[in-house]
Amino acid sequence: MRAYESFVPGLDGVIAAKTEISFLDVNREKIVIRGEDLIELAKDKTYFDVVHLLLEGYLPSPEEKNSLEDNIKKFYKLSDDVLPLFNLLPKGMHPMDGMRTVISLLAGFDSEIENRSQEENKRRAYKLLGQLPFITVNSYFATEGLDIAEPNETLSYSANFLSMITGKISSKLEIEIFDQLLLLYSEHEMPNSTFASRVIASTNSDMYGALTGAISSLKGHLHGGANEAVMYMLQDVDSVDAFEALIHHKLQNKEKIMGFGHRVYMKKMDPRAAITKEALRKLCEKDNDYKLLEMCEAGEVIMREEKGLYPNLDYYAAPVYWKLGIPIPLYTPIFFNARTAGLAAHIIEQHDNNRIFRPRVEYTGKGY
Amino acid sequence: MRAYESFVPGLDGVIAAKTEISFLDVNREKIVIRGEDLIELAKDKTYFDVVHLLLEGYLPSPEEKNSLEDNIKKFYKLSDDVLPLFNLLPKGMHPMDGMRTVISLLAGFDSEIENRSQEENKRRAYKLLGQLPFITVNSYFATEGLDIAEPNETLSYSANFLSMITGKISSKLEIEIFDQLLLLYSEHEMPNSTFASRVIASTNSDMYGALTGAISSLKGHLHGGANEAVMYMLQDVDSVDAFEALIHHKLQNKEKIMGFGHRVYMKKMDPRAAITKEALRKLCEKDNDYKLLEMCEAGEVIMREEKGLYPNLDYYAAPVYWKLGIPIPLYTPIFFNARTAGLAAHIIEQHDNNRIFRPRVEYTGKGY
Repeated sequence: MRAYESFVPGLDGVIAAKTEISFLDVNREKIVIRGEDLIELAKDKTYFDVVHLLLEGYLPSPEEKNSLEDNIKKFYKLSDDVLPLFNLLPKGMHPMDGMRTVISLLAGFDSEIENRSQEENKRRAYKLLGQLPFITVNSYFATEGLDIAEPNETLSYSANFLSMITGKISSKLEIEIFDQLLLLYSEHEMPNSTFASRVIASTNSDMYGALTGAISSLKGHLHGGANEAVMYMLQDVDSVDAFEALIHHKLQNKEKIMGFGHRVYMKKMDPRAAITKEALRKLCEKDNDYKLLEMCEAGEVIMREEKGLYPNLDYYAAPVYWKLGIPIPLYTPIFFNARTAGLAAHIIEQHDNNRIFRPRVEYTGKGY
Repeated sequence: MRAYESFVPGLDGVIAAKTEISFLDVNREKIVIRGEDLIELAKDKTYFDVVHLLLEGYLPSPEEKNSLEDNIKKFYKLSDDVLPLFNLLPKGMHPMDGMRTVISLLAGFDSEIENRSQEENKRRAYKLLGQLPFITVNSYFATEGLDIAEPNETLSYSANFLSMITGKISSKLEIEIFDQLLLLYSEHEMPNSTFASRVIASTNSDMYGALTGAISSLKGHLHGGANEAVMYMLQDVDSVDAFEALIHHKLQNKEKIMGFGHRVYMKKMDPRAAITKEALRKLCEKDNDYKLLEMCEAGEVIMREEKGLYPNLDYYAAPVYWKLGIPIPLYTPIFFNARTAGLAAHIIEQHDNNRIFRPRVEYTGKGY
C-alpha cells in the first residue's frame, strides 16, 4: 500500500473499494454481477432472479424466487403512519425529493434500526423493495397533485408496479419488458450513487441514511437523469427528419447528446441498449407505429458516423418507458427503484468489512 | 497525474479535492480556515464571524456581521406548510433522522432549486442556517413526544438556539460558551460528512440533497456521535474514583474510549479541547460544583499515561453541553447545525468547479 499524494479529479480510476458484487470488465466488455454476465441474465432471467443474486449471492431456484416474491408482496401497502406525508409533499416538488423524504421518515418506524447484522439488513432491504413501487409512484402523483394509487397484491411485482403507474392492467409483453428494464438497471459497479451510499454506510450509519444519499446523488443531472433527457429530446420533434435536424443542430452547437457513450462498451453498442432496442421494436410492432424506433435509429446512425459514439442503456430505455405509458418524471425514480437491491448489497458489504472513508485535501486557499 | 491502481481502505491519505476552504495542517498542528487559525478565531471571534468567513471568504466588519445576523433571524420560524411534518415523526425516532426528513421536505419549497449559482446557493445556505435551530430542537422534541418550541426573534442566534433547547433565557456566560462551541465545530477539512456532501453535489445535485447525505453520515457512530458517547460514560458514574475505575476497566477490556486522539494534534492536547476545558471550568465555578471537571481531568491523566492519547474537542464539549442543560441526544444534531456553513461552502465550491466522483473497484467476487 502506498499513500496517494497527487490529486485525481473525481477519483477517476482510483480504486475505492474491494467488492464481490459487480465489476465493469472493460477489457472483456462485460458487466459482471456476482460472477454472472448481466446480458446473459437479461435473456432468460427476471428482475427477482437478479435481486436474489445480488442479496443472497446466487441465482434462486424457481421455488426460492416465488417465495421471495411472496414475501415482498406483503409490503406493497405502506403503513398508515406514513401516508399523511404524501399530503405534505408540495406540488412541483421533484419526485426524487419526495421519495427521499418518505424513505427518510421510514427510518423512524424501524424498531431494529441500530441492528447492522447482515440478516437484519437483508430483511430491511426486502421490505423496502416491497414498499418502493408505492413510494415511487405516489411521490410522483402527490407532487403532481393527483390521487394516491393503491397497490394490487394479486399481481406480480412488475405488473403491480406498472399498473400503479398507468392505472390499467398491462399486457404480458409490457410487463415482461418493464421487468427486463428493472433487471438491466439493477446494478452497475460503483457509479456516484453507489459510492455515496458506501461513503455514508462507512460511518456505521444505517441503510435508510445510505439510500437517502443515493437518491440525492441519482437526482443530479450528471447521473440519473440521462434517460429523461433523451425522451425530452425525442418529444421535441415529430418526425425522423426533424429529429435528424435536431441532432445535427446540437452537434454543431457542441451540446452534449444524452444517451451515447459508455465506460465499458466503447467500441460497439452497449448490449443492454441492444436488448431495449429489441423491446422497442416489439412495442412498435404491437401498435403498428414505428416512428419512435425510426427516429432513434436515425439518431444512432448520425452519432456513430459523426462522433464514433454508440447508444447506451438510457437511449433506448427512454422510448420504451414512453411506449409503456410511463410519465417522463418517473424515469429517474424508477432507476432508483431498480438499483435499490444493488445499493443494499453494497451497503451490507460495507457494514460487513468496514473502514470509514476519510480522504484528505490539497489546500489551495489563503496563506496563514 | 497518475492512475491509482492499488486499493487504500477508506481512501486514507488520498487527496479527494482541491479546496480553498480549510486544511488540517498536521505538521504545524493547525486547523486553517480560509487562511485563519481556528484557535485564534475562537479566542475573540463569534460563530457568525466564522459563518461569514466560510461563505463570503473573509472576516466581516461588525456592520457586516450584524446585517448577516439580522438577515438570518428572519428565518427562525419555519413555514406552516412544513410544521405538520413534526407530528409525523414517531416517538423514538433518532432526531438526526427527523432533521434529515425535514430538510429533505424543504427542498420542495425552494422555487429556485434548479439554480446552482453561487449567489443562489449562499441565499439557500443562510436561509437554512436561520431555520436550523427550529429544525434541530423540534426534531428532538417531536421524537420525544414533547411540544414544539417557538423561536424568539429578539434574541441573538446562539441565545435563541440555546433558549429553545432549555426553555429559559440563558446567562451571558452560557450563551458565549454555546456560541464558541458552534464556532469550534464549524469546519474541519474533509471528514466523512463533508466528503459525502461533495460526492453528492458532484452529480450537480442540490444543496438539500448534499446536506441530507451529510446528516446521514454524521449520524454514524464512527463519526458524529463521539461527544454523546463521552457524556453517557460520564453519566454512568458519580465520582472521580468511579470514573477512573471505569476508564481502567474499559482499557483492560480493550474498549475504545471516545473523546481521545486526533488526526492533527497527536503530540499534545487538541487546543479546541483546551478552550472547552476552560469553558467547563467557568461553568463549574458558577455552580461551585467541580465534579465533572475533576472527573474529566482524571480521565485525561489516565489516557495520557496509559495510552499516550490526548483529549479532543468532543471530550470536553460533552460536559460543557451537559452543564448548559442540553439533552444528550441533541449533541450530534447540534454538531450538524454548527457544521452547516462549512458544508454549504464545500457544496458551493464543488458546484463551481466540478468533476463527478466516480471511482472504480477491485473485484474479488466469483469468476466468470
